Amino acid sequence: MTDVVSTDPRTGRAVEVVAAETSPREVAALCEAALAAAPALEDMGRERRAALLETLADALEARREDVVAIADRETALGAGRLNGELTRTGYQLRLFAQVLREGSYLEATIDHAGETPMGPRPDLRRLLVPIGPVAVFGASNFPLAFSVPGGDTASALAAGCPVVVKAHGAHPATSQLVFDVMVEAARGSGAPEGALGLVHGLQAGADLVSHPAVRAVGFTGSVGGGKALLRLIEQRPDPVPFFGELSSLNPVVVTPAAAAERGEEIGRGTVASFTLGAGQFCTKPGLVLVPSGAAGDVVVEAMAAATREAPAQVLLTAGIAESFGRTSSELAQLPGVSELARGAEPEQRGGFTAVPVLLSARASSMPVELTEECFGPVSAVVRYDGEEELLAALAQAPSSLTATVQRGAGETDLPGAVVRALRPLAGRVLFDAYPTGVAVSWAQHHGGPWPSTNSQHTSVGTSAIRRFLRPVVFQGAPQELLPAELTDGFTGIPRRVDGVLRTPGA
Amino acid sequence: MTDVVSTDPRTGRAVEVVAAETSPREVAALCEAALAAAPALEDMGRERRAALLETLADALEARREDVVAIADRETALGAGRLNGELTRTGYQLRLFAQVLREGSYLEATIDHAGETPMGPRPDLRRLLVPIGPVAVFGASNFPLAFSVPGGDTASALAAGCPVVVKAHGAHPATSQLVFDVMVEAARGSGAPEGALGLVHGLQAGADLVSHPAVRAVGFTGSVGGGKALLRLIEQRPDPVPFFGELSSLNPVVVTPAAAAERGEEIGRGTVASFTLGAGQFCTKPGLVLVPSGAAGDVVVEAMAAATREAPAQVLLTAGIAESFGRTSSELAQLPGVSELARGAEPEQRGGFTAVPVLLSARASSMPVELTEECFGPVSAVVRYDGEEELLAALAQAPSSLTATVQRGAGETDLPGAVVRALRPLAGRVLFDAYPTGVAVSWAQHHGGPWPSTNSQHTSVGTSAIRRFLRPVVFQGAPQELLPAELTDGFTGIPRRVDGVLRTPGA
Repeated sequence: MTDVVSTDPRTGRAVEVVAAETSPREVAALCEAALAAAPALEDMGRERRAALLETLADALEARREDVVAIADRETALGAGRLNGELTRTGYQLRLFAQVLREGSYLEATIDHAGETPMGPRPDLRRLLVPIGPVAVFGASNFPLAFSVPGGDTASALAAGCPVVVKAHGAHPATSQLVFDVMVEAARGSGAPEGALGLVHGLQAGADLVSHPAVRAVGFTGSVGGGKALLRLIEQRPDPVPFFGELSSLNPVVVTPAAAAERGEEIGRGTVASFTLGAGQFCTKPGLVLVPSGAAGDVVVEAMAAATREAPAQVLLTAGIAESFGRTSSELAQLPGVSELARGAEPEQRGGFTAVPVLLSARASSMPVELTEECFGPVSAVVRYDGEEELLAALAQAPSSLTATVQRGAGETDLPGAVVRALRPLAGRVLFDAYPTGVAVSWAQHHGGPWPSTNSQHTSVGTSAIRRFLRPVVFQGAPQELLPAELTDGFTGIPRRVDGVLRTPGA
Repeated sequence: MTDVVSTDPRTGRAVEVVAAETSPREVAALCEAALAAAPALEDMGRERRAALLETLADALEARREDVVAIADRETALGAGRLNGELTRTGYQLRLFAQVLREGSYLEATIDHAGETPMGPRPDLRRLLVPIGPVAVFGASNFPLAFSVPGGDTASALAAGCPVVVKAHGAHPATSQLVFDVMVEAARGSGAPEGALGLVHGLQAGADLVSHPAVRAVGFTGSVGGGKALLRLIEQRPDPVPFFGELSSLNPVVVTPAAAAERGEEIGRGTVASFTLGAGQFCTKPGLVLVPSGAAGDVVVEAMAAATREAPAQVLLTAGIAESFGRTSSELAQLPGVSELARGAEPEQRGGFTAVPVLLSARASSMPVELTEECFGPVSAVVRYDGEEELLAALAQAPSSLTATVQRGAGETDLPGAVVRALRPLAGRVLFDAYPTGVAVSWAQHHGGPWPSTNSQHTSVGTSAIRRFLRPVVFQGAPQELLPAELTDGFTGIPRRVDGVLRTPGA
């Protein structure tokens, strides 16, 4: 048995043994318990699962102080950020309770029997049902909102799917604590035993995605990690859906008009965005396209000044720190790339420390390496001469979770051309804003074409629940064997009846 | 260059050379043309794409006689069935025109800026956009409705995605004819050149799924074929979504009450269903669970009599005929399995002929091979003693597109238990009906867990369009850079605004 150790990134030292790595036998037992729990979790119905999610949120809030303290000790993300993340996590659980009560997510659809140009049609009634046990992989960079109690877990439980989480090795103690809090709360809410499970260790993660009981996988992490899991899934006799969020460059375009109007503000705001959370956000702006000329110079000088003022930061893990140090140095030495500014050196060495770095290049000679994500507080400012050069540079960018346009007041021509170029590459297009900070709401989406994600819906926003549901049609079913939401006269949720969408009361 | 040959399955002889196999360079050119056509196809908007779909339906109808004649010569499915399939194909195209005009498929969602427990939220507006060029693989068994003009093509074009179809080798002449008809009609509707492409040949199919311009793949075919395509997709630098419909057993349960009430009718109906289209439907009932005892005997005797009366049939290809002959013989020789009845021998040999076969086994000793799909007119009747033995047999069944319960009038207890057992394994649960025949409608779904499909939505029913769309959020966008459906005051389609679903006019 190998110990799972919690490390303090501020010192780089191991602090405590949290658990033993979960053995293959234990993983199997958790998966089988999850499978056994599935019918009872579904049978709780929408209202009782909504109450379960609210109870989980309450329970996490009740342990806020402990959770934030342990998470800060394990991640060095700071109490302010982690308090915000806990609030977000609770909000997300409660939003899915709303989704359950509202009921559209079931996509209840009824076509009555009748004649059609194809001949007689039987009575067909469709809704979405839980897909079965879901494996969730916690992310390194959000110990709460994208980990044990995060969006994957919230949406899967809402859907009625038991969840087995693979704790991220960067914060095993936080994972274990919030898991224990959630299990106790779930028990009190009448959730079946087995509805929540937790495993530790890389091999346990591999065992988890390979287990026959697991019906879908939610993952937030690296392209390499995601591809490794995909390979395991493809080796299953029954490949299951994999919902991965993997990598993102998040290009930013500053138009000449925007540079002229708000150059200083945009420059400082962009540095604040790329250094937020030590540059470990999936939505970190990694490439900033700024026009040549005096107005662009204002943006770049503000970025350089803000970078120099930025303090040294603590990264999550030794691996991230090593990779950041190496990659940011390598990028600075590429032909056509220079280091424009760097932040303050740390007062004392030790721990997984990183100094923010701002790189510089020209669009006409931008090396492709600048368009690859580098986790940590580094970004590249790239100067362009005119629309043609700008669009050529954008054509080199990989797909991303976000793309941002900073435009002048009322400006539409160049922003329109930029959006036409960026929309095929992005899941969210921002105007006059910074990509870090992803609101949880009905309209939100956090995804994009590969490598940002491999799927059409991801773990943020209410459509996250759809990943863990599948359609079932009942043909010619007697009323007493239909789910309540498909019976005649049920008016509690929106339904589509004979092609017409009907809202409750309509 | 290798010739693509059209074969007559009634004689087994090659009839004509349809085309040369599409070369790698030609595949690449078609994919690049598709990519280039994507913006113009999207920009046609919902109304003009709806008109395009209707024009395609009209054009196919106008060539009905030619299309049915060539398809019958290539598939031997018969003019009656093929006329029905053409009607279905046109209906499907027109249904997606309705889907476009109705507009719910866009999932337009608006969250206005405001305060939330997480802090201030920006203005977020989401809708679904076309995913990009789609590769469609025609199926052997539906030369129209699941091939060049089928559900994959209709839903992808509706979504605004250019389509490159890989023609199935079982009906290349039909594929080429309907493709030519569609291209001419599309041109007349103002669709961009490149919106439709066609390739012939296995290697061309492999080249197609590997081409960088292709953003999603729709496939109806065998598990082996699907897995081969999945492997190619996983080797891409950017794996794309694969929507496959692969294999299905379609178990049928006859309860003792149903057997007592309608034994003869159920037995004859089930044979009609498993021999329909020479047993080459993905929804063919391959396993029929009938109670032991006198009432069940009536079902089984009716099945045996109907099978003996069933004429010899012509299968689609030499490969299917060879596989059917070999597999149905092997199954009959398994321990515990016997051949209960077989249809009439053909009057003359030649062509890809098959004689319908009814196998028999007991649930207590059913070999697992009986639960594997065998394409062609063969089915197995399995006798069970009591509910426990029935449920144990169902637990051995793989996931399927459909599962059927034949129940007694007003009977709910045993049917309820059977549905609880079958629903996790099926995408459609039928009562007192036969699984062949899949109505195209809003509520329809044609899928199920692996191996029936590998995805949550498939090519039948209106939600098929969702496979070829992905979400994009606009954050803080000016009105003039938003898609019309997301602008303030637009009321033409259902939208969710600040969490509330609003139908037009509401």
